[in-house]
Amino acid sequence: MSDNLTYKILRRHLVAGDLVPGQDITVRPDQILIEDATGTMAAMQFEELGLDTIAVPLAVMYVDHNVLQIDDKNMQDHRYLRTFCDKYGMRYSPAGHGISHYIHLERFTKPGQLLLGADSHTSTAGAAGMFATGAGGLEVAVAMGGYGFDFPCPRVIGVELTGRLRDAVEAKDVVLEILRRYGVRGGRGAVFEFYGDALDDLSTTARATVANMIIETGATTAVFPSDRQTLTWLTQQGREQDFEPLTADDNATYDETIEIDLSELVPLVAVPHSPGNVLPVADLPDTPISQVCVGSSVNSSYDDLATVAAALQGRAVHPRVAMTVTPGSRQILRTILESGVYQDLMAAGARMLEPVCGPCVGIGQAPLQGAASLRTFNRNFQGRSGTAEDEVYLCSPSTAAASALAGRITDPTGRSPIELRPAPAPDTGIHDVLITDRLPDEQRAAVVIERGPNLVSPPLPEPAPDDLHARVLINVGDDISTGDMAPDGAIAMSVWSNIAACARFMFTRLDPGFHDRALEWGGGVIVAGDNYGQGSSREHAALIPVHLGVRIIAARSYARIHRRNLIAAGITPLVLPTDSPTFEPGVNWSIIGLRRALLRGDQTIDVEISGRAEPLTLTVDLTPGEREVLAAGGLLAHIRDGHRTPVTEHALA
Amino acid sequence: MSDNLTYKILRRHLVAGDLVPGQDITVRPDQILIEDATGTMAAMQFEELGLDTIAVPLAVMYVDHNVLQIDDKNMQDHRYLRTFCDKYGMRYSPAGHGISHYIHLERFTKPGQLLLGADSHTSTAGAAGMFATGAGGLEVAVAMGGYGFDFPCPRVIGVELTGRLRDAVEAKDVVLEILRRYGVRGGRGAVFEFYGDALDDLSTTARATVANMIIETGATTAVFPSDRQTLTWLTQQGREQDFEPLTADDNATYDETIEIDLSELVPLVAVPHSPGNVLPVADLPDTPISQVCVGSSVNSSYDDLATVAAALQGRAVHPRVAMTVTPGSRQILRTILESGVYQDLMAAGARMLEPVCGPCVGIGQAPLQGAASLRTFNRNFQGRSGTAEDEVYLCSPSTAAASALAGRITDPTGRSPIELRPAPAPDTGIHDVLITDRLPDEQRAAVVIERGPNLVSPPLPEPAPDDLHARVLINVGDDISTGDMAPDGAIAMSVWSNIAACARFMFTRLDPGFHDRALEWGGGVIVAGDNYGQGSSREHAALIPVHLGVRIIAARSYARIHRRNLIAAGITPLVLPTDSPTFEPGVNWSIIGLRRALLRGDQTIDVEISGRAEPLTLTVDLTPGEREVLAAGGLLAHIRDGHRTPVTEHALA
Repeated sequence: MSDNLTYKILRRHLVAGDLVPGQDITVRPDQILIEDATGTMAAMQFEELGLDTIAVPLAVMYVDHNVLQIDDKNMQDHRYLRTFCDKYGMRYSPAGHGISHYIHLERFTKPGQLLLGADSHTSTAGAAGMFATGAGGLEVAVAMGGYGFDFPCPRVIGVELTGRLRDAVEAKDVVLEILRRYGVRGGRGAVFEFYGDALDDLSTTARATVANMIIETGATTAVFPSDRQTLTWLTQQGREQDFEPLTADDNATYDETIEIDLSELVPLVAVPHSPGNVLPVADLPDTPISQVCVGSSVNSSYDDLATVAAALQGRAVHPRVAMTVTPGSRQILRTILESGVYQDLMAAGARMLEPVCGPCVGIGQAPLQGAASLRTFNRNFQGRSGTAEDEVYLCSPSTAAASALAGRITDPTGRSPIELRPAPAPDTGIHDVLITDRLPDEQRAAVVIERGPNLVSPPLPEPAPDDLHARVLINVGDDISTGDMAPDGAIAMSVWSNIAACARFMFTRLDPGFHDRALEWGGGVIVAGDNYGQGSSREHAALIPVHLGVRIIAARSYARIHRRNLIAAGITPLVLPTDSPTFEPGVNWSIIGLRRALLRGDQTIDVEISGRAEPLTLTVDLTPGEREVLAAGGLLAHIRDGHRTPVTEHALA
Repeated sequence: MSDNLTYKILRRHLVAGDLVPGQDITVRPDQILIEDATGTMAAMQFEELGLDTIAVPLAVMYVDHNVLQIDDKNMQDHRYLRTFCDKYGMRYSPAGHGISHYIHLERFTKPGQLLLGADSHTSTAGAAGMFATGAGGLEVAVAMGGYGFDFPCPRVIGVELTGRLRDAVEAKDVVLEILRRYGVRGGRGAVFEFYGDALDDLSTTARATVANMIIETGATTAVFPSDRQTLTWLTQQGREQDFEPLTADDNATYDETIEIDLSELVPLVAVPHSPGNVLPVADLPDTPISQVCVGSSVNSSYDDLATVAAALQGRAVHPRVAMTVTPGSRQILRTILESGVYQDLMAAGARMLEPVCGPCVGIGQAPLQGAASLRTFNRNFQGRSGTAEDEVYLCSPSTAAASALAGRITDPTGRSPIELRPAPAPDTGIHDVLITDRLPDEQRAAVVIERGPNLVSPPLPEPAPDDLHARVLINVGDDISTGDMAPDGAIAMSVWSNIAACARFMFTRLDPGFHDRALEWGGGVIVAGDNYGQGSSREHAALIPVHLGVRIIAARSYARIHRRNLIAAGITPLVLPTDSPTFEPGVNWSIIGLRRALLRGDQTIDVEISGRAEPLTLTVDLTPGEREVLAAGGLLAHIRDGHRTPVTEHALA
């Protein structure tokens, strides 16, 4: 058998199913990553499983999202999560310590292992030869309980990288080029696997930039080989013992292959409001900017920040531009302090923020409405910045720096080359002081979980109904993100531990009356276009509809994680025909025999619609495993009913 | 004439009136300090004056409060203020650059000069031999327009400092001792002027701690001599040319004198919910803490942070404690980076925040409700932290550090003495890059002020009515702070540029129905106890009642700045007798001849009250100048009517 690297790693972890694209497989994760925003819901659902301990070798909770603390809700969440971690044997990284994906890359990535994270950008760890993917909080909680992770086997796109990047063209431009080619839907169901001569020059953090943002194509993850660059990284991190060389087999096959000649790339920018709207910077009209933000879970490595510092050194940011810089972790912060990068950035006028997610999820630094904000982040969905009428552009660190100086979006190429301050050896011990260890078993029993009033257990779904009679609640367009359902921002995210409270924000940008109408009507049907639920893994986007009484969604197509979250939450994701009409709110839908259709394996189902003579035929595109979960009433019920068995050798209660 | 130092400085600036306590005087300020939170209202009112330029030698706008940017309102404010400054000749210190009081101390303080600030803690500059005091935004705008600053001449309390502080007892404990003796009302109408041998050991930043927090006694300001310590400070700042030795005349007289023997002081703490509730740390019951915050406009100097770092060095903050550190300015940030103080704090687990006001005004880091939060700040009014049911304790840096390690409030004395990392020479040029210069006059005319929808001109008051018939809206107790009227916090403060929007927050902590009732009733009377309007200088606390239709307040006594803000806003502050009963909302009050009583100089006025046979006699404790302003309909109208003439030699339009 000639495996590509993706399948080679998956095969090591395969518990059930065959590596055939689209078929249900179950894998056994080695590592779990959770962050606080999705973590409170994941933790409360883990508690519902009734277990005494986690059943994976390593699980880390990172507090990096809800850390501004504009009222006391954030600290309630932190206290809950810390006591939860102590109780069940997770490790806990406190607020301000760093962004999950960077700390995980520094401290825990291990070639050949499988990481499951309750955050879509968990894929970042694919930079170091791992299979690393994001899922909803409940699926992660279930995996953490030892039940493995079920998902449809991905196809694999082989990406050959050749040539060398020109001056001021960066890894960010590589992933923007992939987004230019594939858009925000083209990667669905796929893993992007990288190989080729150009990898020799691509550091682990550069690969992390690609692996992080590959998610925006809709992909499952990115996988890079474990090679000399990986060894260099692990050695710098004092973890050379974790190295294992790993590449695809000779003559490995791929479902599709592409080539990118890095020497031909130019600086690119994703224009509002999609990471898939990619243009060469040089092709942009004159675009004055009011803000530049560097950092987030992508482009906040030492090299990224040193690149910006070198471009700004001895100069000042344009007076009409507010600039912020967010290092990825305390380790990076320590390194930029030692090298002088921090001082250069500060002297140029940049606001040096804590190593937290911050502006990337609209938690602080919300930009002016209608004024361009240029960011080295990974998403520019409208409103994600915290400002409803924002205009966010995404770019590389070099483009950000040149633009910050000029006050307008500026191509950074063709200038005199900059010289980075040398990177001092990182302080690899800094995390040891701050990330808690797994509490010894004999101490865990005595831990009392502290749950403030902001923490409310999520609603429990019911089995799919025999028949459904409901009104259309809303009809939304293509590429609706989970951020439209459970919005980002300091205010909206502070109630992510309470589904009834977050429900008030669902679709507010699109239709402020949605929430009240849904409550008044006792539920209904959400009708949507293509790629429904793109973006973040937040399962709140599925739990809110449960709370509002929604039992089915009908969309032309779905984004991967959200589709699975709907199923885990007991909501049936049906597929509209491509020529489906739109529906006004209030139109009645009737489906007879929904539950039966799921159980029988029907591939289609008819909907009777008020005012239409002919029924509308929807596709039921669900795997056998997914049908079982929906029939049971969601993933928790499915497990409670005894349909899932533990897959790990770790003790289960 | 044998002047104390306070009167010596005032005399240099006196334009009208005599230096007799309680009498109206007018002074000519040399410098104006405004911060963004109070600054948008001050600036919009300055625009109403119809002038072309500021008419004081120096005026600086510091953006340090509303800088979290949880939505786009903050950046609208920043853009407005920057263009306002360019238009009128102010200098502008951008967001993230530092806290007004620290930057001003570093860059602009000048012994013998007079500083007026739209922030109560403007008194901080009294540390360097200035007369520096806070006022409402309109009074500051009027002074900035060249009309001088009117205020009642203060009495002067002489404070002799003797002895030396013991290890781990600090300047913060000196001002807490004064608060222990005077409470939050005892300093009203007074300036605390310091002298004595102990001053030789008290650095300018230590004096700044005292001068900053002296305001909590209700005082007008604190004045320290300009001496060897002042010269040292100015020399470090590269400003020795600004030095002038200044002390009280020999045989100077004071209205009152006290002595504090520093060698007898012990670590003190202000317990919830008043800076006047001061106890020795050693007398406190066991108090576990969940948070420690170091910094703010007090205790964020190099020495303060180095003290904390030395205590924490090589150790970690207690795992149940979240700790934050806020340097006072970018200069201080640069200095702690160079010395290693920053690195020590970070390694111990502290979250290193930007140099902004932040948690001190509830903009971020809101604590857990009901759990003790220990802070080196200056105020612990309930709710100011951003958490309604907070429990905030105030202390010195040494007490904060010892407590952060122990996880409970801990007396820091009796341990092995710590050794501070030596202070490197400050980077005195860092401000030059970032604070804008006054724009040349020929460029100012072309500047267009950019005013987003968050910026709404404040309501214009009307002249005091002939007769008043109104219902009691609310009856509040003693020591109600302006924070109860225009609350702190990231959400409430983001609308400080729009009085109708901030009005919704008035008294919410005390009576959530207040706002709607006031609107429904078309105004009414606010009845209050002693020291009404203590704390911050925010004139929103007076402008909101104007918006709600309030024409008089009746309190037992008033805090200095709020009383003046009410008058400037055209609201008559009447004084209740000490034996006054309380009044239920809805009780009718009638005052016949209010305007006439003001104009005639009546000392009392009668109120007919529904359900009471006898009228209630209120005191009209107003100076002749104040009566004029109220009769005119507030300070803007008073100036428009031509009652005020310019007092500066600077060009007026």
